[in-house]
Amino acid sequence: MTELRRRGAGDVDSTDNTSDKENYGDDRLSLQGDVDGECDLDAKGDTDVPPSTADTDNTPQCLNKALEGLPPRWKNYWIRGVLSIAMITSFFFMISMGPVALIFVVMTIQIKCFQEIITIGYRVYRSYELPWFRTLSWYFLICVNYFFYGETLADYFGALVQKEEPLQFLARYHRFISFALYLAGFCMFVLSLVKKHYRLQFYMFGWTHVTLLIVVTQSHLVIQNLFEGMIWFIVPISIVISNDIFAYLCGFFFGRTPLIKLSPKKTWEGFIGGFFFTVIFGFILAYLLSQFQYFVCPVEFNSETNGFSVECEPSDIFVMQQYTLPSVVQSTLKWKSVNLYPYQIHSIFISSFASLIGPFGGFFASGFKRAFKIKDFASTIPGHGGIMDRFDCQYLMATFIHVYIGSFIRGPNPTKVLQQLMTLQPEQQLAIFHTLHSNLRERGLIAPTE
Amino acid sequence: MTELRRRGAGDVDSTDNTSDKENYGDDRLSLQGDVDGECDLDAKGDTDVPPSTADTDNTPQCLNKALEGLPPRWKNYWIRGVLSIAMITSFFFMISMGPVALIFVVMTIQIKCFQEIITIGYRVYRSYELPWFRTLSWYFLICVNYFFYGETLADYFGALVQKEEPLQFLARYHRFISFALYLAGFCMFVLSLVKKHYRLQFYMFGWTHVTLLIVVTQSHLVIQNLFEGMIWFIVPISIVISNDIFAYLCGFFFGRTPLIKLSPKKTWEGFIGGFFFTVIFGFILAYLLSQFQYFVCPVEFNSETNGFSVECEPSDIFVMQQYTLPSVVQSTLKWKSVNLYPYQIHSIFISSFASLIGPFGGFFASGFKRAFKIKDFASTIPGHGGIMDRFDCQYLMATFIHVYIGSFIRGPNPTKVLQQLMTLQPEQQLAIFHTLHSNLRERGLIAPTE
Repeated sequence: MTELRRRGAGDVDSTDNTSDKENYGDDRLSLQGDVDGECDLDAKGDTDVPPSTADTDNTPQCLNKALEGLPPRWKNYWIRGVLSIAMITSFFFMISMGPVALIFVVMTIQIKCFQEIITIGYRVYRSYELPWFRTLSWYFLICVNYFFYGETLADYFGALVQKEEPLQFLARYHRFISFALYLAGFCMFVLSLVKKHYRLQFYMFGWTHVTLLIVVTQSHLVIQNLFEGMIWFIVPISIVISNDIFAYLCGFFFGRTPLIKLSPKKTWEGFIGGFFFTVIFGFILAYLLSQFQYFVCPVEFNSETNGFSVECEPSDIFVMQQYTLPSVVQSTLKWKSVNLYPYQIHSIFISSFASLIGPFGGFFASGFKRAFKIKDFASTIPGHGGIMDRFDCQYLMATFIHVYIGSFIRGPNPTKVLQQLMTLQPEQQLAIFHTLHSNLRERGLIAPTE
Repeated sequence: MTELRRRGAGDVDSTDNTSDKENYGDDRLSLQGDVDGECDLDAKGDTDVPPSTADTDNTPQCLNKALEGLPPRWKNYWIRGVLSIAMITSFFFMISMGPVALIFVVMTIQIKCFQEIITIGYRVYRSYELPWFRTLSWYFLICVNYFFYGETLADYFGALVQKEEPLQFLARYHRFISFALYLAGFCMFVLSLVKKHYRLQFYMFGWTHVTLLIVVTQSHLVIQNLFEGMIWFIVPISIVISNDIFAYLCGFFFGRTPLIKLSPKKTWEGFIGGFFFTVIFGFILAYLLSQFQYFVCPVEFNSETNGFSVECEPSDIFVMQQYTLPSVVQSTLKWKSVNLYPYQIHSIFISSFASLIGPFGGFFASGFKRAFKIKDFASTIPGHGGIMDRFDCQYLMATFIHVYIGSFIRGPNPTKVLQQLMTLQPEQQLAIFHTLHSNLRERGLIAPTE
């Protein structure tokens, strides 16, 4: 969640971590204030949701011990600071482990987020004893994951799939199998309907499906982005994190004007300052990463080594180019042109999205938490809340990057086109061959006699 | 909804229409009985939903007048009978109007279904005065439709899109534009959040999205199926309708054993009898339609006539073939072989799905209506309820047919492969050309000297 809050009275602390927990005390108060106002409406809804999911303390013993003497407020700052640094460090560590490890990390995070949101659903509807439903939610999660990972596998592991007979079968009938699996769950749902719980069961059905839509489909996009090149994974994530930090700092030092009622601590100053610094950060990060094949090359499955390779002739956007500056800028800076990776220009759009539209993902999560009167999604990360509290903006970003790549970066993938071509009937292949032949000849790309 | 009900006491009527309205009186009673049992749970939900959405009578004046003298029960039978015949007749009429008209019909039905379900949501949550939300729901509907219809347009109207400059732009950036439109709606939602209504607004957000998932995505599949050939549109729809009728009749005449608690009027006899007769009906219908190019040819946009054409060399599954019968059958029937269209064999799978799995769509809708204590989705069709009451099984069927075609019928579309090929870079096209060339030569499909 993006933080753009005003400076609290005497609240001087420069920890650059990014959650709003330290200010929760105030938030909580105003929330309590809301409850009365909401009661008339909520009487139709669920007034008495168990208030907080974050009632357990997962703080490591050693950290608790080291911070024993501090007043609770400062202790909390420290816990969050240490955990923030730990998370950023482990992010670096995971990147160094390569794409396969990252896929598993994304999958784990996705499952955890799903579990957090579903658990909130159970609490909201107090549906602890709904027959079958806990099982069914997880079954749907497995089906949808089977579908998405299978699609990716068939797309990017083409070479591997072609080699193994059973995989070929699974790939050929992938959608049918996925649909059959889902249908089985759907029928189980219908059969599990019991008079006493009808409405509750439909609510949980809807809750599960909206969660799948938000968490699973978008996680899948994170992985698809990763396959386009590690840079499409690392830069967006880093930009979102850095925007959190810069917006927090700018809000902390210059914040005066409240931004949105939903998050009373956020300010226009933090919002605009965050935008400004995030663009600079993204621009530099893009420059640094564009230089390495490890980051810029698409992740491809190599059937010889049976592993992933990230080696290639970098595409145009990762090749340094000279840009002539507009004449106004020329006269001011005395520079005629600059050398840039085109990806750096793309990074400006990514940063702008992360800092201008991305926060809406956070506002949405904020509103959701307030609607269901919970403090955090869970209490997984001490001082930060649930995994979902840290990833609310990342999901929206993943979708943006996916659409961005599809619209502005990547044309159709020649490997995939060739694969499709090879699955056609021989006479269809021949027809395409002749069309292509005459077309290439007309355009002078092959000799007329060839 | 599939009807498989037991014969009511003295309830002799052979009208072959397909809704369960005439038995609603009994249903209603048992529902009222449920209410008490549900109260403890529903106290957390919404106990007091306005009971019925179908409180207006849309029956045409002339019909009311003609049936004036009849007792209400018989009057209702007649209304439903006349309307059923009217609907089936208009179905024939629409088919004769061709694919473009059908696309508009599907779109209209989809919008009406969306409106019916959203209206129920408004009643359930009594969210009449939610700021913006009515507008936002419809906005999301437009976005999602823009996305889906755009994808179809770009796929099937390739030739048209290539000709027109602005269309080319829209096609190239279609996903980006759709995403931006959706995002605008998402941000509007976040900005429209007001303290007093938080939870209500999130419920309506979820309700809208689940409706989009069920109605709009599946309607889109109906249209995609239509493009594969009118037969993929007509046969599944007719099979679902006929299964409704046959199951009703079998249940009416032979029904003894209750099938599922959710629909107390349905019986195993109706379920199995419906399956049996539906398979026969589907088999015959498949035979009749397979003979006409109008039905079996994919619907393709013809850039010369600027219209749709349904002319082609029929694919293998629509060419009569000889099948040798198993020896057991041979000795019984004294036939050695039969001539069939392969599509007739596919029709058996379609019929089986329609009569064995399809009813679960109806059970789901049934459960939904009971959960929210409504009689019908709306009162659009006199005697039948809402449009959604008639189409609940059709949507599940559409998805099945879509997956079925993708898995068992259609390989990749050569026209699409060629289109993709042409959007590649010239050097990529050359590389593919040479790969294809040597591959075809190796397989002896072109002469070594060519």
